Amino acid sequence: MEPKMDIAALQDFVAREFPQLGDDFVIERLREDGVTVRLQVAEHHLRPGGTVSGPSMFALADVGMYLAILARIGPVALAVTTNCSIDFMRKPAAGADLICETRLHKLGRVLAVGDAMIYSEGQSAPVARASLTYSIPPS
Amino acid sequence: MEPKMDIAALQDFVAREFPQLGDDFVIERLREDGVTVRLQVAEHHLRPGGTVSGPSMFALADVGMYLAILARIGPVALAVTTNCSIDFMRKPAAGADLICETRLHKLGRVLAVGDAMIYSEGQSAPVARASLTYSIPPS
Amino acid sequence: MEPKMDIAALQDFVAREFPQLGDDFVIERLREDGVTVRLQVAEHHLRPGGTVSGPSMFALADVGMYLAILARIGPVALAVTTNCSIDFMRKPAAGADLICETRLHKLGRVLAVGDAMIYSEGQSAPVARASLTYSIPPS
Amino acid sequence: MEPKMDIAALQDFVAREFPQLGDDFVIERLREDGVTVRLQVAEHHLRPGGTVSGPSMFALADVGMYLAILARIGPVALAVTTNCSIDFMRKPAAGADLICETRLHKLGRVLAVGDAMIYSEGQSAPVARASLTYSIPPS
Repeated sequence: MEPKMDIAALQDFVAREFPQLGDDFVIERLREDGVTVRLQVAEHHLRPGGTVSGPSMFALADVGMYLAILARIGPVALAVTTNCSIDFMRKPAAGADLICETRLHKLGRVLAVGDAMIYSEGQSAPVARASLTYSIPPS
Repeated sequence: MEPKMDIAALQDFVAREFPQLGDDFVIERLREDGVTVRLQVAEHHLRPGGTVSGPSMFALADVGMYLAILARIGPVALAVTTNCSIDFMRKPAAGADLICETRLHKLGRVLAVGDAMIYSEGQSAPVARASLTYSIPPS
Repeated sequence: MEPKMDIAALQDFVAREFPQLGDDFVIERLREDGVTVRLQVAEHHLRPGGTVSGPSMFALADVGMYLAILARIGPVALAVTTNCSIDFMRKPAAGADLICETRLHKLGRVLAVGDAMIYSEGQSAPVARASLTYSIPPS
Repeated sequence: MEPKMDIAALQDFVAREFPQLGDDFVIERLREDGVTVRLQVAEHHLRPGGTVSGPSMFALADVGMYLAILARIGPVALAVTTNCSIDFMRKPAAGADLICETRLHKLGRVLAVGDAMIYSEGQSAPVARASLTYSIPPS
């Protein structure tokens, strides 16, 4: 299935819909069933000690899955996050961006469900994983 | 069981440990098994349309449970969030602070588990609920 | 709000809808926002060592929340479990029934969300807690 | 890393540890980071209408992840399930076995975290997915 929005259109959407996130997120890849998003880690994402904060990782997983849904259904309606279950498994590497791979498992009439895996750039062991559910408003 | 830290000591801890959060969080009440924390909603918590963002609610639940654990074990060791499952149930009321009630269900040797309920101030129907798990480092 | 089904009607529904569960579940109380259900612990619920198995506790939480929804909307349509996040916190007491208290937090047009707390009878510290989401089919 | 138990040893463990499950589960494959387990669907797994029940799918995910941990650490200590978050996404196909693929994301000193994907045999769209956390007792 062809995505209904390409990377440029999605990047544009992030800038418009999440203006306070500024240049935090960069879409790196668009696959049939998901996207790869980079969090350009900056001072305001960090906890004392220099690790990326939990809310920043939550935001990354949420944005990544949101974009995977938009790529498939187009910007016609706003999906709403209804559940996120996130496991924090390892301390992110200091000074490294985070890379998030999302994968849609279901895109139904009213619900979308998917997973996000978050890595410190260049590492193979995941930092966090999340499963997310979205409610799709009637069109 | 007497809390090992009082509201002033906890508030102090938030200011020190989460400096970038500034005056976002105010501890309102301390009970034996939990705390009540207010998110003073400001511009940077909002999504377009004026609702509080998901990551801001995640941060509120996380801080609230963290403080409930600290109040019980004291500032001797840093608990680490290992899982958060959050349900977003209703749109927060515009222009209202969020009130988060946390409740510890288990404080074991290595794991702590609890719930957070989040309300728009003055409303009885919850906006979000979360369950959170923390790993307690060996002391 | 008056429940649309009483305890006898709900008990009847369990017998019909979950016939293989036999006399496992007894509805003890019906409140406006939830039900109390007893699992009559029997040999087939146990793991070696004598504790109630995880799937049995999952079934208890699921049945308890399902009944809370039915009590409110009536037996007009079959809600479908879409998510369950369950925390196992303590070993159930040997030889004791399990008591499950469910509470509906949201009963929307398409989704219902609630919590279940599970106790060994006569104990105040919970054995498990779960949050559950159901999809409500269009009527 | 070489598994510490092979398929025969794991299958033996299931028969001993979960005797009431009888021949329900068959281990089909053992990979470095997970196992593939088949649920041989029988009458007692079904809900009225012929679909596999939620508790049966929960048990499948739990057994599959448990075996993935055992294969790695050996039968020296009993891991305990502390959390399971499961999404039910599609109705299982009638008359088909369920195939569960588990993948360990973290095997730490005190916690193990992994995912399970459940499919109806011969279908590519998943029926359910789960993330599970286990506490590893001190050895």
